[in-house]
Amino acid sequence: MGCDFIARATPGVQGLEPYVPGKPAQELERELGLSQVVKLASNENPLGPSRVALAAAQQALSQLHLYPDASGYRFKQALQRVLGLAPEHLTLGNGSNDVLELLARTFVRPGDEVIYSQYAFLVYPIVTRASGATAVVTPAHNWGHDLDAMLAAVTERTRLIFIANPNNPTGTWLDETALTAFLDALPEQVIVVLDEAYTEYVREPGFPDGLELLRRYRNLVVTRTFSKAYGLAGLRVGYAAADLQITDLLNRVRQPFNVSVPALAAAEAVLDDHDYLARTRDCNSAGMAQLTEGLRRLGLDFIPSAGNFVAFDCGRPAAPVYQQLLERGVILRPVANYAMPNHLRATIGLAAENERCLEALAEVLT
Amino acid sequence: MGCDFIARATPGVQGLEPYVPGKPAQELERELGLSQVVKLASNENPLGPSRVALAAAQQALSQLHLYPDASGYRFKQALQRVLGLAPEHLTLGNGSNDVLELLARTFVRPGDEVIYSQYAFLVYPIVTRASGATAVVTPAHNWGHDLDAMLAAVTERTRLIFIANPNNPTGTWLDETALTAFLDALPEQVIVVLDEAYTEYVREPGFPDGLELLRRYRNLVVTRTFSKAYGLAGLRVGYAAADLQITDLLNRVRQPFNVSVPALAAAEAVLDDHDYLARTRDCNSAGMAQLTEGLRRLGLDFIPSAGNFVAFDCGRPAAPVYQQLLERGVILRPVANYAMPNHLRATIGLAAENERCLEALAEVLT
Repeated sequence: MGCDFIARATPGVQGLEPYVPGKPAQELERELGLSQVVKLASNENPLGPSRVALAAAQQALSQLHLYPDASGYRFKQALQRVLGLAPEHLTLGNGSNDVLELLARTFVRPGDEVIYSQYAFLVYPIVTRASGATAVVTPAHNWGHDLDAMLAAVTERTRLIFIANPNNPTGTWLDETALTAFLDALPEQVIVVLDEAYTEYVREPGFPDGLELLRRYRNLVVTRTFSKAYGLAGLRVGYAAADLQITDLLNRVRQPFNVSVPALAAAEAVLDDHDYLARTRDCNSAGMAQLTEGLRRLGLDFIPSAGNFVAFDCGRPAAPVYQQLLERGVILRPVANYAMPNHLRATIGLAAENERCLEALAEVLT
Repeated sequence: MGCDFIARATPGVQGLEPYVPGKPAQELERELGLSQVVKLASNENPLGPSRVALAAAQQALSQLHLYPDASGYRFKQALQRVLGLAPEHLTLGNGSNDVLELLARTFVRPGDEVIYSQYAFLVYPIVTRASGATAVVTPAHNWGHDLDAMLAAVTERTRLIFIANPNNPTGTWLDETALTAFLDALPEQVIVVLDEAYTEYVREPGFPDGLELLRRYRNLVVTRTFSKAYGLAGLRVGYAAADLQITDLLNRVRQPFNVSVPALAAAEAVLDDHDYLARTRDCNSAGMAQLTEGLRRLGLDFIPSAGNFVAFDCGRPAAPVYQQLLERGVILRPVANYAMPNHLRATIGLAAENERCLEALAEVLT
């Protein structure tokens, strides 16, 4: 009885779906009485934490009663030293999810338009709707972004365009020629958010480096995360690199203490752990070959991926396949919420994990 | 040259001041060649971390490559066990700043009105302006919230009312009789955000427990933090307790992984560290007596405070006093940005820190 608070929310928030969290591996082990669950569902780094990052986080915990450095001074110095990014172009985020949201909140009003692709990362529709904007979703081309369609969708009301390169959950990617042609053709006031969460994994020739492109395009914003190849998903660190004005605005909206003490310390340290990044990339390349060969042997179509995951077509509704894999202790990611009801997404794991995944798939599907 | 991106931001964001971070103690030590800086500027816990929380955070770091539990299952179970809060009434935040912002983003559209008091916590104007709402600021009464004025300010466009109890930076507080009379008189659709960041410090009789009041007022939202008495400012944990509908909405907007792995573990653990909380409260009471007696001896007026800080009147512009204290290695907090240009706010420290602060004040002011 009484007031209906749902009706009191902004129209954008009323249109959001309540978030349903994924099943933690521990919970599944309890539920099913399994001892060794293989979780290849969240695109986490299967190597475990970087020892260098872990040591830095541990040391930083002695300061856990003190507020983090709101400016992230030392971490930004490390980003400058390692990646050549000047601090005044950086906005730190509690994961890159945080900076993606800041971008929508900074530039998008109710009635504005935001463009993204079919099958693009789910955070784009969420932050778009929460801001009350109109989502303009362009059809995919071979599961990837159709830049011509995106360009054609631009109107005077377009504020932001989200582009994931590579894209999650499809793994599709855009090469530098296509991307720069798109940026060259775009009106200068339309901001392009280039989400490079998986860029460290990419070995394909012709793949663009968004940080290089920043010098040529003032309306380009590059977002990156430490949750994937840098192995810090549990600490929540990401950033946006952008023009001075855009950075100024984002930092006005940003919560000053949005990145924690151990997160700042670990992210600073892992930037110098070149060995960890190299092992991560090698493990991923080997695992991608193993997993895709296995999928081929099983006769399953998959979307060629440049990331640390691969989406494959079960050839039938994926939900029961997901359930039967769960019962065998293998957690993959259903992507029905991306309107891909027959696909599952598998994160590249260690060799033994990939093998377990393929064995379980063989049992379930044949 | 080229596009003016400032003009492309939403009007609310254009009106925000760029955040100027405070000076870290280490930086001041370097700058001034001092070896022992006393920082009483950020209302942090002077006891340092709880050992129980520290151990839990350290253990959790082995999982830093994995995403946090988006639902915060174990932490919410602990909140239920210790504070009687059912999980379905809880929204977790990256500090309570995060849930304060979620409330504005969920319920406030451009043109709506948000009420808060003169001298109230600075996050209220920030989240109000960022949402494009009209801020309705009621004059303070004896530095505290004037609930009659706040009630009189309610219109059909009022969406939220922020009340800090006790308030930062003044330390003023409202008793249960006054607060419930206000809540009884308020239209049921107007949401009251009761910010209890400092509630654990309060020993004044008649002080209300917002969590108890939740049972009587569906339009009440109580926010709490682990940054103050629980000593976890560096990890960023807070929460909102509220009605089911309000909680549902907040969790739609909330970034699913907004609280990190070590933060969830430490916050869960510290809830059972009753000894740490008791020592924190005792240390604060003793330090408050020491600091206020010292201020009296120096002939300085202060605002009686129920928190872990006290704001005092320098009897002259505070900015030069702040500077001269800095040169003596004592960092306090200027509150000119609260339109209190003659006041400084001192956090209650350990006995020796309070003594250093009083000695430096005596040197500077006499």
